[in-house]
Amino acid sequence: MSNFADRLVEAIRRKRSTVVVGLDPRLDLLPSDLRLRHGAGGTARPAAASRAILAFNKKVIDAVAPHAVAVKPQSAFYEIYGHEGVDAFEATCAYAADRGLLVIADVKRGDVPDTAEAYARAYLSPDSPVDALTVNPLFGRDGTEPFLKAAAATGRGVFILVHTSNPSSKEIQDLSVRGQPLYLAIADMVRAWGEGEGLVGRSGYSSIGAVAGATFPEQAKEIRSILPRAFLLVPGYGAQGATAKDLGVYYNADGLGAVVNASRSVIFAYTRSPGRETYGEKRWEEAVAAAARTMKEELQPYLKG
Amino acid sequence: MSNFADRLVEAIRRKRSTVVVGLDPRLDLLPSDLRLRHGAGGTARPAAASRAILAFNKKVIDAVAPHAVAVKPQSAFYEIYGHEGVDAFEATCAYAADRGLLVIADVKRGDVPDTAEAYARAYLSPDSPVDALTVNPLFGRDGTEPFLKAAAATGRGVFILVHTSNPSSKEIQDLSVRGQPLYLAIADMVRAWGEGEGLVGRSGYSSIGAVAGATFPEQAKEIRSILPRAFLLVPGYGAQGATAKDLGVYYNADGLGAVVNASRSVIFAYTRSPGRETYGEKRWEEAVAAAARTMKEELQPYLKG
Repeated sequence: MSNFADRLVEAIRRKRSTVVVGLDPRLDLLPSDLRLRHGAGGTARPAAASRAILAFNKKVIDAVAPHAVAVKPQSAFYEIYGHEGVDAFEATCAYAADRGLLVIADVKRGDVPDTAEAYARAYLSPDSPVDALTVNPLFGRDGTEPFLKAAAATGRGVFILVHTSNPSSKEIQDLSVRGQPLYLAIADMVRAWGEGEGLVGRSGYSSIGAVAGATFPEQAKEIRSILPRAFLLVPGYGAQGATAKDLGVYYNADGLGAVVNASRSVIFAYTRSPGRETYGEKRWEEAVAAAARTMKEELQPYLKG
Repeated sequence: MSNFADRLVEAIRRKRSTVVVGLDPRLDLLPSDLRLRHGAGGTARPAAASRAILAFNKKVIDAVAPHAVAVKPQSAFYEIYGHEGVDAFEATCAYAADRGLLVIADVKRGDVPDTAEAYARAYLSPDSPVDALTVNPLFGRDGTEPFLKAAAATGRGVFILVHTSNPSSKEIQDLSVRGQPLYLAIADMVRAWGEGEGLVGRSGYSSIGAVAGATFPEQAKEIRSILPRAFLLVPGYGAQGATAKDLGVYYNADGLGAVVNASRSVIFAYTRSPGRETYGEKRWEEAVAAAARTMKEELQPYLKG
């Protein structure tokens, strides 16, 4: 498989989109018809809940495929339903890959070297539908290396947590080390890691990117300058409060270097304005498609060339 | 369910043991008879591999139950086999709980608040066989709080990563912040978090503990002094190089406050000295039991009263 960064650049140019749709299903927000059809009304058992979630995800994937470059299923919302939920997670990844979307598995794993190697094998093996993985860097180089090696060997990508989108992120990530905040020290590491053999594509971008929350544009500006050849995966758009006008600093001058994730504001667009009024639950798939299209258009001014 | 720390103290006193056995199965190290019996010779499919792993784990649990207070299945080694591996993980946890062992799910999850809440629901719900979870603190208070709340509500425990056992742990965890290394700043947070309502047991210990690798006793001494009422979960014994004589600083004067994990050196005792020579693969369960018993006895001098 070719270099992940190159595949991402190709998808961005082809679709004129930097949209990632987060697949964070919540059973209580699924359309009630769909829930009932899969025996997942009320407090559903794990098997029924997982069936309903997979059916929902497939429709969402179909709806957003013209507008998004990638989907980002968040593992936690599947692990709630145990192994049956994980089965739905796997089937979701496979379905999205079949539909030509890149798949970013949002698992935020991180561990000691032997265990990190097991995680890399779990998600980045040659036959996995997963294109990229989110990784927690707290363990340092030896805990991150198995992911980097797997990415180089199989044409996959890794997004390292550098500055997360939650309010308390500053408590640890902004602590001052050697005269700079920790997140910049981690960005320095990501830069070095991303220059490793087999990781930089013909596009000049590295397959090792960074997570930089949309809710912290000031910090993103510094991260951007330390990581000119990394893609930033930017969560926090929409429901977490960031809007398109906040995001200019995340992109490079070439219009590349960032992909922006929205979860709830797209996949549950029929439960909130304006999707609720315009489409309602009966036409929920149209509401999802419209939200993805609007987000794509809002971010298009940053795309150049 | 009663307070996790109290249940841990009770198990330690009853068994006169501070041993935790890490269930990190590796298919290629499983006894070949057992592999063949479950159709998992060679490059096994996920379903067969998962069956063999579960069968192995059950025998290991039976062998170590008299000597260990807890088992610690490491999620990565199950996630390799996808949802079928996760099914084996769940069945392993349930079997260990049935055999009277505490179950520490080593998942090292950590995420933004909504997602952390989903993880807490996945592992710490009232009917889960999991007694405690490992958590990565990089997100700060709001990402950790859902785990603390679930622990308080359901009598479960959380072990926060403070200083991990891998050589590169120092690259981030030892960075100096406000005149002290990051791991001590995190230990300060763990102390405050552990004093929350419903978390301190009648034993005086908190259900919020800390991971402190056995390979860093100097650092553990400092962590111990900051966290007098927390249990330290101490990985790195055995295969990672630490021995019983290194571990005095991890325990409190009352002989409590630490549980020590060994994985490979116990569960694969039949593949290494002295278990290989004394028992060999034919009598592998005896080798496992003997390794757990030896470890228990090596650590007993630290137990007081």
